Amino acid sequence: MRELTYNDYKRIVEQNLLNYLPEIDQKSITVYEAMKYSLMAGGKRLRPVLLLASCEFAGEECETAIPYACGIEFIHTYSLIHDDLPCMDDDDLRRGMPTNHKVYGEAMATLAGDGLLSCAFEAMNRDKLMFFDDFDMMKRRISASYEIANAAGCRGMIAGQVADIEAEDKNCSVELLDYIHNTKTAALITGAVRAGARLGGADEETLEDLTQYAENLGLAFQVADDILDVTGDVESMGKKPGSDEESKKATYPSLYGLERSKERLAELTEQAKAALAKYYDNAEFFVKLADELAERGK
Amino acid sequence: MRELTYNDYKRIVEQNLLNYLPEIDQKSITVYEAMKYSLMAGGKRLRPVLLLASCEFAGEECETAIPYACGIEFIHTYSLIHDDLPCMDDDDLRRGMPTNHKVYGEAMATLAGDGLLSCAFEAMNRDKLMFFDDFDMMKRRISASYEIANAAGCRGMIAGQVADIEAEDKNCSVELLDYIHNTKTAALITGAVRAGARLGGADEETLEDLTQYAENLGLAFQVADDILDVTGDVESMGKKPGSDEESKKATYPSLYGLERSKERLAELTEQAKAALAKYYDNAEFFVKLADELAERGK
Repeated sequence: MRELTYNDYKRIVEQNLLNYLPEIDQKSITVYEAMKYSLMAGGKRLRPVLLLASCEFAGEECETAIPYACGIEFIHTYSLIHDDLPCMDDDDLRRGMPTNHKVYGEAMATLAGDGLLSCAFEAMNRDKLMFFDDFDMMKRRISASYEIANAAGCRGMIAGQVADIEAEDKNCSVELLDYIHNTKTAALITGAVRAGARLGGADEETLEDLTQYAENLGLAFQVADDILDVTGDVESMGKKPGSDEESKKATYPSLYGLERSKERLAELTEQAKAALAKYYDNAEFFVKLADELAERGK
Repeated sequence: MRELTYNDYKRIVEQNLLNYLPEIDQKSITVYEAMKYSLMAGGKRLRPVLLLASCEFAGEECETAIPYACGIEFIHTYSLIHDDLPCMDDDDLRRGMPTNHKVYGEAMATLAGDGLLSCAFEAMNRDKLMFFDDFDMMKRRISASYEIANAAGCRGMIAGQVADIEAEDKNCSVELLDYIHNTKTAALITGAVRAGARLGGADEETLEDLTQYAENLGLAFQVADDILDVTGDVESMGKKPGSDEESKKATYPSLYGLERSKERLAELTEQAKAALAKYYDNAEFFVKLADELAERGK
């Protein structure tokens, strides 16, 4: 296995991201500009990086997985654009910049989100792509598309957004908060890892271990985010801290308190790492990543 | 080739439609109800019927294409839900019933649309589906997914919606109106036919002929719709006639006048039928359908 770092993977994603948007007619170019605006607004590229790294971990060079990595970043970006809409969280600022609908208006932001979701599946299913004569690769591609659609859909990310909206202004139980975080955040992170593993030809055991890792990492990531919302500042977050409290959203700190939340973050990080312990140094990338994400919430 | 009628295909679609929605947790069941509300609100099922019929025309029994037929109806339905949103066309009535956002609110309607688009690709890529050991069928499935994503995306349906919104309150040229109708309406109809043809294993010539047919049929369908908006009544349309004029949308009648629009409809119908003339009776289904759609605009 090659030794690629987080930044290596991130560079691959960012070099390719715009290439997987289709060429768009001048008559509808505004939607391209709106999609590009949010795609290029920065971000950690966590989901596509995990997808590429999981493909390499499973034994295949990650170049084959690039359209899927770009596709999952399109999907993540669409979810942010729609989450920020006035009828959803009504946010003005994202990653330190005005949100998509603040720049392009509500109609265009809705369409930019719809466009990114469609473009994701367009990128992943382009016929002329790699290995169109490799039977095994075709099966892997269909499985990877399924993992991503399932994670983005009504049992994954959308379920989380629905439950999140319906929980506002209500008493949110710990069980419901776990459900929201597992679906809204962890599902797409898990989908990224599973899609990458599928594309890399992982066996069932490896797929299961990576899934365990990703589910814990994804939840840890959200707990860290909740902690940051209490302890962070606008510069490090790119949005106003305390915005969860303002919108009366339940968070780990609001239900558990800050100390217990930090303990939960540490537990989840350990569980993520434990899921890949048997791979020793081969899983170094994933172990290091879990530690780094946990640092954010300290 | 079996002799299935429009109503036979429609029945197959309607019997299967809800089976291809994933099972959804009670905590996010509202989005399922919202999706189901619009899916079950009736409609001609034109796109999935065309997809199934094209698969049979290409030589394969249409059962293999059912997930794709359901998927394209999910996509069509999502586009209607988002089109009706307050930030888009702001419509209260669709197919004689309150629009999705009138019943479920704007946030849930946005999510129901997002959910349907994700569920479409989830249905089409379910691993355990038919022929997972048939190499040819795997290639066809990836091609069909691509056709549908491309038709729904930023060179297809979304491009049309973008251009449509930007054309409001401006002087719309005949060229721009053709672009809007070709992308907003004809693209997904063409995508349905091409996806069905791919799944049925059509050769390039048949694919090209069916594409010609669908492009003309799709545009004819929209011209007929524009004519109906002038001449129809609320009962036959399920929405208020004259709503295009009210919203200052350009239409064929507003640019060409009613008589010239009817001539254009007849021309497009003839061109659609001519594209399949060489198949004689084998193309009877498609010829009859073109005539029936043209009748609507008379």
